[in-house]
Amino acid sequence: LKDQKPNVAKKAYKTPGPESYELDLDDEKPGYYKNSSLPMHQRMEAFVTDLQKQIIQGLEEQDPTAKFELDKWAREDGKGYGISGIVQNSEVYEKGGVNISIIHGKLSPGQIQSMRARKNTNVLEDGIDYDFNVAGISLVIHPHNPMAPTAHANYRYFEVSRHDDPTHTPVLSWFGGGADLTPSYLFEEDATHFHRTLKNACDHHEASFYPRFKQWCDKYFMNTHRGETRGVGGIFFDDLDEKDAEDLFKFVYSAGKAFVPSYVPLVAKRKDMGFTEENKRWQQLRRGRYVEFNLIHDRGTKFGLMTPGVRIESVLMSLPLTARWEYCHSPGQNSREQRLVDVLKNPREWA
Amino acid sequence: LKDQKPNVAKKAYKTPGPESYELDLDDEKPGYYKNSSLPMHQRMEAFVTDLQKQIIQGLEEQDPTAKFELDKWAREDGKGYGISGIVQNSEVYEKGGVNISIIHGKLSPGQIQSMRARKNTNVLEDGIDYDFNVAGISLVIHPHNPMAPTAHANYRYFEVSRHDDPTHTPVLSWFGGGADLTPSYLFEEDATHFHRTLKNACDHHEASFYPRFKQWCDKYFMNTHRGETRGVGGIFFDDLDEKDAEDLFKFVYSAGKAFVPSYVPLVAKRKDMGFTEENKRWQQLRRGRYVEFNLIHDRGTKFGLMTPGVRIESVLMSLPLTARWEYCHSPGQNSREQRLVDVLKNPREWA
Repeated sequence: LKDQKPNVAKKAYKTPGPESYELDLDDEKPGYYKNSSLPMHQRMEAFVTDLQKQIIQGLEEQDPTAKFELDKWAREDGKGYGISGIVQNSEVYEKGGVNISIIHGKLSPGQIQSMRARKNTNVLEDGIDYDFNVAGISLVIHPHNPMAPTAHANYRYFEVSRHDDPTHTPVLSWFGGGADLTPSYLFEEDATHFHRTLKNACDHHEASFYPRFKQWCDKYFMNTHRGETRGVGGIFFDDLDEKDAEDLFKFVYSAGKAFVPSYVPLVAKRKDMGFTEENKRWQQLRRGRYVEFNLIHDRGTKFGLMTPGVRIESVLMSLPLTARWEYCHSPGQNSREQRLVDVLKNPREWA
Repeated sequence: LKDQKPNVAKKAYKTPGPESYELDLDDEKPGYYKNSSLPMHQRMEAFVTDLQKQIIQGLEEQDPTAKFELDKWAREDGKGYGISGIVQNSEVYEKGGVNISIIHGKLSPGQIQSMRARKNTNVLEDGIDYDFNVAGISLVIHPHNPMAPTAHANYRYFEVSRHDDPTHTPVLSWFGGGADLTPSYLFEEDATHFHRTLKNACDHHEASFYPRFKQWCDKYFMNTHRGETRGVGGIFFDDLDEKDAEDLFKFVYSAGKAFVPSYVPLVAKRKDMGFTEENKRWQQLRRGRYVEFNLIHDRGTKFGLMTPGVRIESVLMSLPLTARWEYCHSPGQNSREQRLVDVLKNPREWA
């Protein structure tokens, strides 16, 4: 889309400005989007592979020194692979990772049992072997500049089929994911832009999605031990199977595509702003809270840490490069720092 | 004791050297040690109050700029108090806390139930109200110099009595605690000194304690998701009630008194050593592992975080001032950094 913008001629000379990224919901759709005869896990694999490239490109455009290193790994048992795209200490980004993973295997009896409880279903029968397929993308970006917010997004598809079914038709399947924004300094217009972009993507598919998933996000990304959210939220959903997989895939496609237009313009606007040592210190303290959420509360991280043979570096990729904890630090009354905390303690509507 | 040392004359001019701290197990005992007619929780309260002062004094002696700020707090419901002693960004110490807390109250039905299971006892009857008393000291010291190790110690006493018993005689009581050392760079003589001092304190009471508690420590302070211990260990014990409370109190007294002689000489030896930027970076990465242990695995922290109305800043006091995470960082073969990791992956005998 940005190629149709008037500033395209300047592209070789300067990084694209915030106006260069726009959510286009009527874009020309790729084959995996249209071809409903392909198994869904293959379509999701193609989608996250595609999305990883687009997101890395969008982020690299804002930083001539950022070259995401692609690190492809395979499970030793042959049951899956992943591609980690990592940037560390470039000019704009303190640390960032845009990862995909595609895993398949057999459900263990314990997994079957917990899945039955979680999905409240009788579909999984005793004495039957079940296979699973997962495909997902997961990303976190921590920019250097304390005025530029951290962002996280994650979209994944999970399906279960009978091992003895030659057609591998899913007996259960669902999508999960979302995106959320974590500023150290609150720019209301940034929060509004981020939420509005996600809302547009949601509304294109189902009017109830954004309000539900916005609220779910505020609830999920809560540092309960501090009584504050991690950031200004976004959307979050899990175990989504209320519509058929075809519709949900199209929604997840739009939500995934919304990441670059929701976030990269904020990097563009904030990455070169001036800041003081105090601003940096406050960012580092906020990074500490980010670490607290991810290590204490985040279900994905907890699940990863308890999984034998998991790739720890991928699980902990979300942690910032640096973080700080001061005893009893508290921002001054009516300070900019306190304005952020107020919003974290009382989540607002942004779109 | 150090007042009897020949270098006492220099005390006004320079900080005491490592030889100035010695474990004296035959010291003149204070009243709370000898007076067995006092309730045990009061003796423990007096002990941790006394020990907090001694430890702060020992640490301050090594750093003319370090003045531990004492922060006394009381529970809003009147059921206890604590004194936090905090140092932050002094010349020698990046961050440190030496805290005591003295709490009492009524056991909730849930606590009674989990205590029955945990202690495997029938002593707690249905339909009876029980009171508890806890007194403990908890400390963590993170020095700036990457050659100076982090140390942690914690000693606590817990007792339960029938609410309707006017004598408040404990029906259950136990001690827990320990001390452990977390270097960024391994100095074998430091690990040996730390362990030997603790072993002497243990051996003074019961020959089986040190070997058991050393092993328990290695097992407890394990970052299972990394397959490495937090540091080079020390001693750890919990639910200790196999001897009578009088004997156990005397053991805990010795173990607590051993902290200054086990650790302060290491600060004295290492605080002024030269180091490179690379050494500092490695220390920061090790701080990251410390944060991982405390937020993911440490039972005390987890319990604190889940306790409504808890004082979060005291629970998270143990976190370092700064920490770092790099994606897939791995020390060079045969490097000093790798030598530490080798010991963390295969805990050794030190005393």
